Amino acid sequence: MTAPQSPFDRLRRILADIPPGAPPIDFSIGAPKHAPPEFIARVIAETADQFRPYPPIAGNASFQRAAHDWLDRRYRLGGWFREAGALLPLSGSREGLVLSVVTARDWLGKSNPAVLYANPYYQAYVSAAHVIGAEGVPVRTPDGPSPLPDFDAIPAETLDRAIAYYFGSPSNPLGSVASRADWHALFDRAERHDFFVFADECYSEIYREASGPPVGALEVARERPEVLKRLIMLNSLSKRSNLAGMRVGIVAGDTEVIGAMKDLRNQIAPQVPLPLQEAAAAAYDDETHVAENRRLYDEKFAAAEEILGPLFGPVTPAGGFCLWLKVDDDLAVTETLWREAGVKVIPGSLLAAGKGADNPGVGRIRIALVAPYAECREGLARMAAVLAPKMAETQAALG
Amino acid sequence: MTAPQSPFDRLRRILADIPPGAPPIDFSIGAPKHAPPEFIARVIAETADQFRPYPPIAGNASFQRAAHDWLDRRYRLGGWFREAGALLPLSGSREGLVLSVVTARDWLGKSNPAVLYANPYYQAYVSAAHVIGAEGVPVRTPDGPSPLPDFDAIPAETLDRAIAYYFGSPSNPLGSVASRADWHALFDRAERHDFFVFADECYSEIYREASGPPVGALEVARERPEVLKRLIMLNSLSKRSNLAGMRVGIVAGDTEVIGAMKDLRNQIAPQVPLPLQEAAAAAYDDETHVAENRRLYDEKFAAAEEILGPLFGPVTPAGGFCLWLKVDDDLAVTETLWREAGVKVIPGSLLAAGKGADNPGVGRIRIALVAPYAECREGLARMAAVLAPKMAETQAALG
Repeated sequence: MTAPQSPFDRLRRILADIPPGAPPIDFSIGAPKHAPPEFIARVIAETADQFRPYPPIAGNASFQRAAHDWLDRRYRLGGWFREAGALLPLSGSREGLVLSVVTARDWLGKSNPAVLYANPYYQAYVSAAHVIGAEGVPVRTPDGPSPLPDFDAIPAETLDRAIAYYFGSPSNPLGSVASRADWHALFDRAERHDFFVFADECYSEIYREASGPPVGALEVARERPEVLKRLIMLNSLSKRSNLAGMRVGIVAGDTEVIGAMKDLRNQIAPQVPLPLQEAAAAAYDDETHVAENRRLYDEKFAAAEEILGPLFGPVTPAGGFCLWLKVDDDLAVTETLWREAGVKVIPGSLLAAGKGADNPGVGRIRIALVAPYAECREGLARMAAVLAPKMAETQAALG
Repeated sequence: MTAPQSPFDRLRRILADIPPGAPPIDFSIGAPKHAPPEFIARVIAETADQFRPYPPIAGNASFQRAAHDWLDRRYRLGGWFREAGALLPLSGSREGLVLSVVTARDWLGKSNPAVLYANPYYQAYVSAAHVIGAEGVPVRTPDGPSPLPDFDAIPAETLDRAIAYYFGSPSNPLGSVASRADWHALFDRAERHDFFVFADECYSEIYREASGPPVGALEVARERPEVLKRLIMLNSLSKRSNLAGMRVGIVAGDTEVIGAMKDLRNQIAPQVPLPLQEAAAAAYDDETHVAENRRLYDEKFAAAEEILGPLFGPVTPAGGFCLWLKVDDDLAVTETLWREAGVKVIPGSLLAAGKGADNPGVGRIRIALVAPYAECREGLARMAAVLAPKMAETQAALG
């Protein structure tokens, strides 16, 4: 039983013996690099005496108030969730994504459980299934504007064994966003086969201003509150507030399910230090920095559209901060871009499960637009310079 | 499949309807309350800009240097472990204790694995077995100066299925300390049956100055370096430096095992924010506050000896900050102390597995001496006042 391999380790090995053709520009790692709000350091310094006591696993009053306020405001919940549901702080959404599967397993008590996950996948989904020794079942996220998969392609027997489906909206790396109808269709499936929807909404605030904010799981759940019993929603400050290094997120859901999760987390999970809870509360209370963050990504997507659009057609997704470009051979193009342009991208096939055509990442490369504008522009221009002649050749060959 | 219940939740229910007989004094929760070193807040404030990037899962250079220096100094390793082994930062030792079991399972690949744990137990041990769906096997920690259990009382078949044995030295709540011979006997067993020793040494720095520092797993491993392949040592700043609220610990072991753990943790575990790694490094570099911390506990144990010694005989353990007192009926005494004296203790039977005489906590109460000296003295005096007449009665009845 071997833990799954990191795509970044695999990428490192692929490029190990290839010298970069120019000073490296790294588009491979999706780590936010914009500035976090300036008040964070101040709040932490002011509350630093609170690094002493064990932090309450449920979060302190400031955190609970601010996180509920944010959910209420962001998803126009009119106070519904504050009454109907519960939330907990996480030490970043990653550990929460992983530990949620333990609660789902315990809660549902299915034998031979399966863990479904959106494919391409976030590594933590696969590793979560590994932790509890459950079968992981990749579920292809379709190309196009909707991330809703074709559940009919999955055997009913597998769906019945499912305890959870990890589903991102905005999806990563596609950047597609679930519509209200998508959420309803997903909730129908979860209720029919009795599994949890793990709504990974960590990119929820990284949307194009022109597209507007993605509909969230909770705002659709409000229209059919009974589904809350099979919904676990996760969010994070890593992308929203560029606080990846602070490790704070939230998990939200049905009061009883979250209560069970709280009891479990109180025995196994890392609590969030109180000063970081205070800083998180301040971050949730502020939207100015979040809008500025979006503006910076929008600028970079405009540059990508200008530079790569002529080669690839429209490249801008509704959400997230990645390009997901169609190429002939993602491994070969990754090597070429590194060798000829010093540009590091990640081959789509490393971000998805499956062999050959079953792997939805085959023939895709992911470009994370996290670096400053000028660096992104430079990298995109180098990519275009390398790829344009090759793509013209292919076109010519195809006649 | 239900997650195990917290002993504190159970205690809350037991005392829910009983009014305290005096302003409450809480001896039930073992949360450190002495002051952390004053430099912590300053280091965090000075490095607060480092809350931005994702922290490296292996820890940064400062953390690695300081943690290795501390291990080397504390266990007089002469640089051996720095060469022979590896360590990682943890978000507190609790999550590390839990996630280590995943690595042990993956590494050993035994079918139908069993997880052995010292009984009385720390809740995380039991929950770790629960997380991976393995059988948890309590192993009675004997009374007396040695925490080494009688492995011959465990079926060889069970020992062969074991992937790990959670073992605390100082043990909690007994406070007994493993000798060099104990560690060797334990390592012999681990090698014979091919399981990991999870050496939970989070109380390693809380020892009586008169007893001297407990021998550590690593310093004994140095005498037989091949055992490092089956040893995972965990430590924490929660007790040593009163930084429970900062959530920083370490896990140390064989380079390859820790390498596998690093890869797994990179996919599922919470990283330690960089400013907290810097603060931890500063804490590891300083022993003055650790000695002062011990002095404060020593004072409280002297008070306990003075106040309770006449009733119970010697009560001071070699390590830890708890008293583990023999009583007739731990549940009844817990209720009595709360009702008559407002003193909250925790019944030993809630801290251990097993029914009746098989439960090593039956007939014991745990008193955590974490409150300030005056409060501890007051609580101990109230306990003596309530218990002395009852114990005299029992004595008289026994003739």
